Amino acid sequence: MARPRRVGILTSGGDCPGINAVIRAVTKCCLGEGMDVVGIRDGFLGLLERSVMPLTDEDVAGILAQGGTILGTTNRANPFRLAVEEGGQTVWRDVSDQVIENYFSLGLDALVCVGGDGSMAIAAGFLDRGLNIVGVPKTIDNDLQQTDLTFGFDSAVANAADAIDKIQTTAASHHRVMVVETMGRYAGWLALTAGLASGGDIILIPEIPFDPGALCEAATATSRRGKRFSIVVVAEGAYPRGGEQVVARRVKGSPEPVRLGGIGGKVGQLIEENTDREARVAVLGHLQRGGSPTAYDRVLATRFGVAATDLIRAGSFGQMVCLQGANISSVPIASVVGEPRKVPYDHPLVSAAHRLGVSFGEPGGGPARR
Amino acid sequence: MARPRRVGILTSGGDCPGINAVIRAVTKCCLGEGMDVVGIRDGFLGLLERSVMPLTDEDVAGILAQGGTILGTTNRANPFRLAVEEGGQTVWRDVSDQVIENYFSLGLDALVCVGGDGSMAIAAGFLDRGLNIVGVPKTIDNDLQQTDLTFGFDSAVANAADAIDKIQTTAASHHRVMVVETMGRYAGWLALTAGLASGGDIILIPEIPFDPGALCEAATATSRRGKRFSIVVVAEGAYPRGGEQVVARRVKGSPEPVRLGGIGGKVGQLIEENTDREARVAVLGHLQRGGSPTAYDRVLATRFGVAATDLIRAGSFGQMVCLQGANISSVPIASVVGEPRKVPYDHPLVSAAHRLGVSFGEPGGGPARR
Amino acid sequence: MARPRRVGILTSGGDCPGINAVIRAVTKCCLGEGMDVVGIRDGFLGLLERSVMPLTDEDVAGILAQGGTILGTTNRANPFRLAVEEGGQTVWRDVSDQVIENYFSLGLDALVCVGGDGSMAIAAGFLDRGLNIVGVPKTIDNDLQQTDLTFGFDSAVANAADAIDKIQTTAASHHRVMVVETMGRYAGWLALTAGLASGGDIILIPEIPFDPGALCEAATATSRRGKRFSIVVVAEGAYPRGGEQVVARRVKGSPEPVRLGGIGGKVGQLIEENTDREARVAVLGHLQRGGSPTAYDRVLATRFGVAATDLIRAGSFGQMVCLQGANISSVPIASVVGEPRKVPYDHPLVSAAHRLGVSFGEPGGGPARR
Amino acid sequence: MARPRRVGILTSGGDCPGINAVIRAVTKCCLGEGMDVVGIRDGFLGLLERSVMPLTDEDVAGILAQGGTILGTTNRANPFRLAVEEGGQTVWRDVSDQVIENYFSLGLDALVCVGGDGSMAIAAGFLDRGLNIVGVPKTIDNDLQQTDLTFGFDSAVANAADAIDKIQTTAASHHRVMVVETMGRYAGWLALTAGLASGGDIILIPEIPFDPGALCEAATATSRRGKRFSIVVVAEGAYPRGGEQVVARRVKGSPEPVRLGGIGGKVGQLIEENTDREARVAVLGHLQRGGSPTAYDRVLATRFGVAATDLIRAGSFGQMVCLQGANISSVPIASVVGEPRKVPYDHPLVSAAHRLGVSFGEPGGGPARR
Repeated sequence: MARPRRVGILTSGGDCPGINAVIRAVTKCCLGEGMDVVGIRDGFLGLLERSVMPLTDEDVAGILAQGGTILGTTNRANPFRLAVEEGGQTVWRDVSDQVIENYFSLGLDALVCVGGDGSMAIAAGFLDRGLNIVGVPKTIDNDLQQTDLTFGFDSAVANAADAIDKIQTTAASHHRVMVVETMGRYAGWLALTAGLASGGDIILIPEIPFDPGALCEAATATSRRGKRFSIVVVAEGAYPRGGEQVVARRVKGSPEPVRLGGIGGKVGQLIEENTDREARVAVLGHLQRGGSPTAYDRVLATRFGVAATDLIRAGSFGQMVCLQGANISSVPIASVVGEPRKVPYDHPLVSAAHRLGVSFGEPGGGPARR
Repeated sequence: MARPRRVGILTSGGDCPGINAVIRAVTKCCLGEGMDVVGIRDGFLGLLERSVMPLTDEDVAGILAQGGTILGTTNRANPFRLAVEEGGQTVWRDVSDQVIENYFSLGLDALVCVGGDGSMAIAAGFLDRGLNIVGVPKTIDNDLQQTDLTFGFDSAVANAADAIDKIQTTAASHHRVMVVETMGRYAGWLALTAGLASGGDIILIPEIPFDPGALCEAATATSRRGKRFSIVVVAEGAYPRGGEQVVARRVKGSPEPVRLGGIGGKVGQLIEENTDREARVAVLGHLQRGGSPTAYDRVLATRFGVAATDLIRAGSFGQMVCLQGANISSVPIASVVGEPRKVPYDHPLVSAAHRLGVSFGEPGGGPARR
Repeated sequence: MARPRRVGILTSGGDCPGINAVIRAVTKCCLGEGMDVVGIRDGFLGLLERSVMPLTDEDVAGILAQGGTILGTTNRANPFRLAVEEGGQTVWRDVSDQVIENYFSLGLDALVCVGGDGSMAIAAGFLDRGLNIVGVPKTIDNDLQQTDLTFGFDSAVANAADAIDKIQTTAASHHRVMVVETMGRYAGWLALTAGLASGGDIILIPEIPFDPGALCEAATATSRRGKRFSIVVVAEGAYPRGGEQVVARRVKGSPEPVRLGGIGGKVGQLIEENTDREARVAVLGHLQRGGSPTAYDRVLATRFGVAATDLIRAGSFGQMVCLQGANISSVPIASVVGEPRKVPYDHPLVSAAHRLGVSFGEPGGGPARR
Repeated sequence: MARPRRVGILTSGGDCPGINAVIRAVTKCCLGEGMDVVGIRDGFLGLLERSVMPLTDEDVAGILAQGGTILGTTNRANPFRLAVEEGGQTVWRDVSDQVIENYFSLGLDALVCVGGDGSMAIAAGFLDRGLNIVGVPKTIDNDLQQTDLTFGFDSAVANAADAIDKIQTTAASHHRVMVVETMGRYAGWLALTAGLASGGDIILIPEIPFDPGALCEAATATSRRGKRFSIVVVAEGAYPRGGEQVVARRVKGSPEPVRLGGIGGKVGQLIEENTDREARVAVLGHLQRGGSPTAYDRVLATRFGVAATDLIRAGSFGQMVCLQGANISSVPIASVVGEPRKVPYDHPLVSAAHRLGVSFGEPGGGPARR
């Protein structure tokens, strides 16, 4: 295959600190190799609507430290099944042909797709239809298969830990239980890591359904050990044993209020009703995905961007870059689509937490020390 | 009067960045003057229960930068009307005699009371009963009478503005309306100042009930001006014209979930239902009162602490220190009790916001430019 | 006078957090009033070279939180005395006629000049020549006459206090004296305020020449009081009694190394040579003027920008906006040129520091407690 | 061997964000296992002087987020060669027998030594003499053998990158070259990583001696590419080809001023003398090792602390915990003593930097793109 001369890049799904570092690295590397770079706006939607912009050194100067994505993004544009309003009704259309036509008419030889599970599924669909795509993994939840880490996760942990640090001063001053709800619908990576980083006493994650009695016992245990407050870190997808997940799914026309019956509130209520402790609840929400990426994420995202350009140079389409141990590598895009990557019970961070006396709300205190 | 030899200090009501700076300044100044300092734990409760600790230079070393209060606090302990559980019922008791007895038996000659409106009311009660009290104003909402500013407010503004900065990257990347609910039940100082500091497009405060139609028009106006997202900053006490405040009051046994029907969610719903924009809601909550105080607040709180010691030296009991313009002064404690200080419609910050095109949800756009 | 239709804005002198907030406020207010706004690049140099750009709502979107100035600046371009290389030599030229010609040929009806003492002197010169100028004060050192505060100062204090907080952990762990040199050639506002905000034990400012013996005594006094480390905050313009200022002036071709004989190093050496304490020195330098402005500065700079537009609307040329107490006001530009505003010995912050036991290196400990 | 019942812990060498997280984890884990924990003050000096404190859950509550070390440290106390003042002279004494005697008389069964290269050498000496030591690696420079990362490094990178971000706004506003000198005497890990994280244009590290001509060319190249400023990140141990390292070694009685002839200043001078660009120099210094550890470092340090306790439980003395890839492991303490771990020329970060067009001052631009 001839070497690509024009490379497109799009960012898809929820925004995430570090996306701009990927865009910058891809742009600088491709330009350095003599390739043109075309930025595609708002994910696959931009490819459908031919909403694009050339990317130059100047466009990417100063974006390394910026959160979000200069290209825009959306998590509502699957070209294989696009929601279209027609005659007052929503119908689903396959507009993939148009996307493919535009890919070629824009003169693209390759496409870098920065996205998560859903975006990789779309990318896999276009790979089957002949587009030259390489993937860059992006998920704030760190629950994508085949990569130890995704950029944005360290920033989300930092944001969450910083928030918990702040909330802790109130907890300590008022001798309260503070319940902090983090992101993480399917996997508890963020709650677990931020909880460890901020000295959380109790950490509830979807992978370890909690026992309400054990939770309440743990929430009062800290006062028996002399400390008069506790911090409970709850992933939004956590749920009680035998119960079910109360993750609020947003439906169109019903904004965040729906969220408000989330697990954080329920845990706070549980503690107030079953103990003598006063509880307050904080839902961290969008804060976690905002702001300037951490230095760690800037470097990781930059390395991912460089590696994506390497894949393009090598003609290794259909691959997604990933981090395995300390090394950047790549795996087939198709291999990451599907189930989220969950926290295994024997993960070193879970064991470390147990050793430190952190409770996961397990009956009998789990393997934790008594 | 003989010069005081033993000074007590207590912190009462919600915690607030900068309290420790007051404690440190009072301690260092009093010790420097040859007086003893007694720290009283958990507000007036500590005086009731004789839960005290001597304060030394060493105790206050390194606390200047710490949020919260090393003395602990509570907002549930009015000695003139204390909730006591008796026979399964809550009864209200006047335990002020015990507090007064302890004040004298602890050998206190003066008492520094760091607190807000409610705490100053209690202080006023004890003043009438002969205790030598000086007040230091503390309210995150900045709605205390007679002082231009209270410490903690600048930190709360900084926390809120920082959070809005972070949320803005998501708003811009997704072209969304982001609704951010701040503290401020009775006064809009925090929402107004943080909104101005973070470039909010719409600011809703209790002092200017908003028109839902005007709000929705303003939320879409930004897209007509080329910008494809907006930030709506809403004080928790904001409410629609003709409607009523939906500030959730916490009742015992019903934690934050109650909060969840707050105005932020309602505003988000209003916008999604009446415009074509996607909205998300973030409730900043306890984050705003946490963390290390800003340099500004550390200096202001330190000056308040020094001034409180000056009042004690001068025997000027019954006074509360305050900031008027750039000067530290003092006013009678009794004069600050009662109505919260509200944002006047002709306040320079409101006018500045109008001039910048910020909407307060006023019908016809208010005096704002068209 | 007819109402201005085209307003220019330039930023001159050292950069400072908050300049962009002024640019944004002026732009939004002027556009809102139906005026055009022209951004002039690199201070008066841009007016000389007709290097300008129209400013729109879009240009100023998102700049509120950015440090520096989007217009660029220089502190080497006085049109009344411009250094020009000619035949290998530097000659000084008066190019003010060209600047005036360009002002008119660009169709400017008014000019907002954001700058410090030097820039206001230049502005005063052009006022005399008929240009319609309004001033916005800008100095990181807060040493401009007639205004209680300039934007950027609060950010510099925050940056310095944050740095001192960080350095303190090393000082405490190693039981060292840490000497931290801040900006402030002629006035000690920054060292004084940041020193108070970060719990400095010794603060040395140009207004209070220090006694080397008293300094060394103070540096060891903290260990006698149980604390085993001290923080010395030194303004770069501080100097010993009877000695002279060692502020390094940069000469062309001799970059920062010149700085290295600064007062911070000398103070460290003094302490190591005359006490048994180990000392380390940190020169904060450019860090202090960098980064995103604090919320406080964003609001102050915004208010200044709005007020500057008010002056233009009113035709009140020759005025500089200022802060007096809590109020925005204005004064004649000519009245601020000349001597820097110094810290008076009886300033409340100096008194507060004395009361807290802070040493200014005064012999006999000054009025400080013993 | 019987299971240890009393575990000592000491922290030695320069302080570093995350040490307290290790202390906390060791304390909580050991207490959880029924062992006593003894904190030893100021490194091996505390063992010499029997300056110790019991460590309880309460002592380590709230220290996770604190920089520095609550135990104190020193980098001037090698018991095998201790500097002692005698008769006005410094003589070197071997006091190791006393240390060993105290170890046993304090009833210690095991000792956790948190330190760097020098501390591990001391630990190795005591291992040979029969003490039960496990090591936890600590170096801000990340140049310790056998571990991919040491805690504190991520925090130092974050501090440096944050500082460079701030300095960048000045560089951009003034169109200057800013030279930023970071720590790193023998290895360039910090300069390289922080330089990548903050978009440095030129990175100079000890492992790649720079060519002055190539450096000056690179410093002006950015203006040819449209960007009018550059950031040069210099490790303190960088030096020109054919020249020699100018790392200032502190000698007793000559504090930081010695530092002032460092490489940062020389690079700035070089650029000003050989190009038409204006340069400024910032020496980051102690800032880099201060402040609260990043979330990443808190977790890594916690994991190290847990792993150290595991080694103690297993009786695996003489081992140092380490990070290899994503896994915590351990290596013989003796194997890490000696040469620092340097950045190999083919390291992925160096290659990534080359690909992005970063110059290392290599003649001909090195393998970088032209």
